[in-house]
Amino acid sequence: MKPVVGTLAIIGFGLIGSSVARAARKSGAARRIVACDASAAARRTIKRLKLADRIVSDPAQAAAIADVVMICTPMSAYARIARIVGPKLKKGAILTDVGSVKRAAVVDLAPHVRAGAHLVPAHPVAGTENSGPQSGFAELFDGRWAIVTPMARTPKAASARIEALWKRMGSRVARMTPQHHDRVLAITSHVPHLIAYTIVNTASDLESTLRAEVIRYSASGFRDFTRVAASHPVMWRDIFLANKDAVLEMLGRLYEDIALMQKAIRHDEGDTLERLFTKARRIRRSVVAAKQD
Amino acid sequence: MKPVVGTLAIIGFGLIGSSVARAARKSGAARRIVACDASAAARRTIKRLKLADRIVSDPAQAAAIADVVMICTPMSAYARIARIVGPKLKKGAILTDVGSVKRAAVVDLAPHVRAGAHLVPAHPVAGTENSGPQSGFAELFDGRWAIVTPMARTPKAASARIEALWKRMGSRVARMTPQHHDRVLAITSHVPHLIAYTIVNTASDLESTLRAEVIRYSASGFRDFTRVAASHPVMWRDIFLANKDAVLEMLGRLYEDIALMQKAIRHDEGDTLERLFTKARRIRRSVVAAKQD
Repeated sequence: MKPVVGTLAIIGFGLIGSSVARAARKSGAARRIVACDASAAARRTIKRLKLADRIVSDPAQAAAIADVVMICTPMSAYARIARIVGPKLKKGAILTDVGSVKRAAVVDLAPHVRAGAHLVPAHPVAGTENSGPQSGFAELFDGRWAIVTPMARTPKAASARIEALWKRMGSRVARMTPQHHDRVLAITSHVPHLIAYTIVNTASDLESTLRAEVIRYSASGFRDFTRVAASHPVMWRDIFLANKDAVLEMLGRLYEDIALMQKAIRHDEGDTLERLFTKARRIRRSVVAAKQD
Repeated sequence: MKPVVGTLAIIGFGLIGSSVARAARKSGAARRIVACDASAAARRTIKRLKLADRIVSDPAQAAAIADVVMICTPMSAYARIARIVGPKLKKGAILTDVGSVKRAAVVDLAPHVRAGAHLVPAHPVAGTENSGPQSGFAELFDGRWAIVTPMARTPKAASARIEALWKRMGSRVARMTPQHHDRVLAITSHVPHLIAYTIVNTASDLESTLRAEVIRYSASGFRDFTRVAASHPVMWRDIFLANKDAVLEMLGRLYEDIALMQKAIRHDEGDTLERLFTKARRIRRSVVAAKQD
């Protein structure tokens, strides 16, 4: 099959960036892969694992030779990288990303894209709790959704190219506005991560005798939360700051629902609890049926 | 190896009960297994899967012939079953259970145990989100902890027998007071389940367009919560009612910590967020190191 992209530059080679490199190569989505990472240790790993055709440390160098530049760094680096990369983009080249908050991606990236190049923000809804170039794998996006959030002025051919890239790497593709994306992800991803981080810390603040036991007896539910809470701290810091409004809104809704549960427990309302738990179980079945398990 | 128990009666043949039957048989921990379940459908499954040497519907019948009677039903059935089983226990027989709240187990079971028989409450800290006799497996307890909470007046030989039973089935064994057990489990298990149930319901109450997307994009963190929230609704209703005080205390602590996170997001305190997330990640590493992952 013909490659979707000639030269694909990947800026930031962590779990997602390195998985894109592996998937793009395995699927033949890109003819040539340029890896760019600020960390010398990451560049050594990329070299050792032969994950790219060329490895550079300067995003400007990567941008100058790429047909598609994909930013895969934590979001706090976006504006800085866009200032470097934006003016160096080739005519007709596409700047894209994989960040978890799309309004903020547009705000940080759009102003720096040179005339004649195009911005197509995207977000592959996939991941694990591991970080770094050694943690990626080619199958990470298989059957998962990639959400593309093109702007009104984006040429159809540019969004179609990014959509084709994700499809070739195994994803299913959806399109929505950045605003809508950010609300969906606030409840499906950002608030769950926030709660997981919090509950793990609440447990670790207990008296020291209890703390050791929290680890020991984690097979009882807690370990599923620690898995979520093991995700990249800087990446998540950036996500919460970038999606503040939607996260605080969804957290407010969650608060109200926790209060209901709390009241039902306090007043021994067994029927209410059973009804709420049964409802939650139905949702789980939908997740399994949608093959997102 | 010599069996630890002659005849083991298992009352309530769900995920845990049927896993005990499989593990006890595979490890040779019991010479003979008597299954007791009130549901005719469950009894048919037990028969079809050949999980027991004898299958009965009446707990009194099971108790009359058993050396160890293990209650594996939801906790709301404990008092009723104890009233039936307690007076029928053989002299020297042991009544035990697998419930997630130990103070409540003692309160419900102890008054009904006949003189000359012994109560040794226990709790295997293991499980999956699946229910029913078909969901069990012999390896469920491998390397997991079983917590035994004997009372002051329990003869040493009786607790030692129950501990030996769990060890033979693959568990590591710990001993603690019912009170301490209930606080540890409140934070490692009960509150995480409560939050998982709640967040899944919060998501399902969103506008219908968002709701479908919550399922679709669940690979972003949400599905780990739906997995926890798929657990048995009646079992969990009983746990929250039985461990009300400890659950409400731990939920109160969690509230305070969520408020801290919320404030850090609202005021763009990136350093605070990163510090809290890094701390949570360390706990995850301890869980992995403790092989409870």
